[in-house]
Amino acid sequence: MDIYPASVERLIEALTHLPTIGRKSAQRLAMSIVDKPEEEVKRLAEALLEVKERVMHCEICHNLADGPICSVCEDETRDHSVICVVEDVQGLIAIEKTKSYHGLYHVLGGLLNPMQGIGPQELDLNRLVDRIGQDDVKELVFAISPTVEGEMTAHFIRDVVKDTGIRLSRIASGIPIGASLEYFDDMTLIKALEERRSMDA
Amino acid sequence: MDIYPASVERLIEALTHLPTIGRKSAQRLAMSIVDKPEEEVKRLAEALLEVKERVMHCEICHNLADGPICSVCEDETRDHSVICVVEDVQGLIAIEKTKSYHGLYHVLGGLLNPMQGIGPQELDLNRLVDRIGQDDVKELVFAISPTVEGEMTAHFIRDVVKDTGIRLSRIASGIPIGASLEYFDDMTLIKALEERRSMDA
Repeated sequence: MDIYPASVERLIEALTHLPTIGRKSAQRLAMSIVDKPEEEVKRLAEALLEVKERVMHCEICHNLADGPICSVCEDETRDHSVICVVEDVQGLIAIEKTKSYHGLYHVLGGLLNPMQGIGPQELDLNRLVDRIGQDDVKELVFAISPTVEGEMTAHFIRDVVKDTGIRLSRIASGIPIGASLEYFDDMTLIKALEERRSMDA
Repeated sequence: MDIYPASVERLIEALTHLPTIGRKSAQRLAMSIVDKPEEEVKRLAEALLEVKERVMHCEICHNLADGPICSVCEDETRDHSVICVVEDVQGLIAIEKTKSYHGLYHVLGGLLNPMQGIGPQELDLNRLVDRIGQDDVKELVFAISPTVEGEMTAHFIRDVVKDTGIRLSRIASGIPIGASLEYFDDMTLIKALEERRSMDA
């Protein structure tokens, strides 16, 4: 198709490699870029390159970092005896936004999924076990989505670390605050019932 | 918010300036860029810069072009006596894709909209009038969306060029092929009835 000038076609093609951007969206984005001021497009291009140049994964917890160690792991004021296990950086950020957790993290970078060939090696779970052994870690909080893969991963980690005597916990599952019961599946309701808590003072 | 490293935050900010990309989408895109191979991100950054460097609007019809004149206007085999008036480059591309139109184009770059201060000057309609005067143009085909602004624009242009004796036409409006009647508004159905055509061979 040579309807677009070659350079526009190359931009469309490059944009379609981004998640959720199909060819139609890529065309729309490319058109907006054609009409944008040059400085704005330069800023975007430079931001892309800068991220690849500077951002790495923290050597300790695998969070995003502008250096070898992330700001969470470097922060001496945080509670280094609690590690929250999350699936990905998005999960970490969701929890950080609440400003109510002050421990450390461990970013798995995925969940166990034998069907897709993702085993313990791929998730580098040894690194987590090493942290528990080295540091003065007292509790592991699982903040993993309550899906089949999430449960499987949490179970696996539990089996691996159970001999260390470390405390294990996981975030509660149930009905989101403000939501209406009718919109939730049976499993969620069953879980919410099972895990009901006393309302006494 | 300093949850993201500064460079990731700058990328998210730059991405939100693109159309249809809100902060959530920008975060998702930025995350995918962090995890992409460096060459792929470089290719995207270069494509962005190249488009700003090379792509311009055709001096004749305002279509996208890698030089001063676009490939349609430069093509001697096309019918230079017909000009199709479209709102934007997207419209031109939609028609080119059909491979059934072989005349030239005129890209307005917008529609008249007094409420938003878009008048004849903003659309540079003189350029279109000049083309009709200079070239051996015999027909003007309006391929503008049948909206209020589209109708207003077509009417305005018609008034401006009516003394030239040029033939004016517009693409048919009606029910899209393969669509079910029930999904269309009254105006579309009325238009489709009014503009019904004889089925006699």
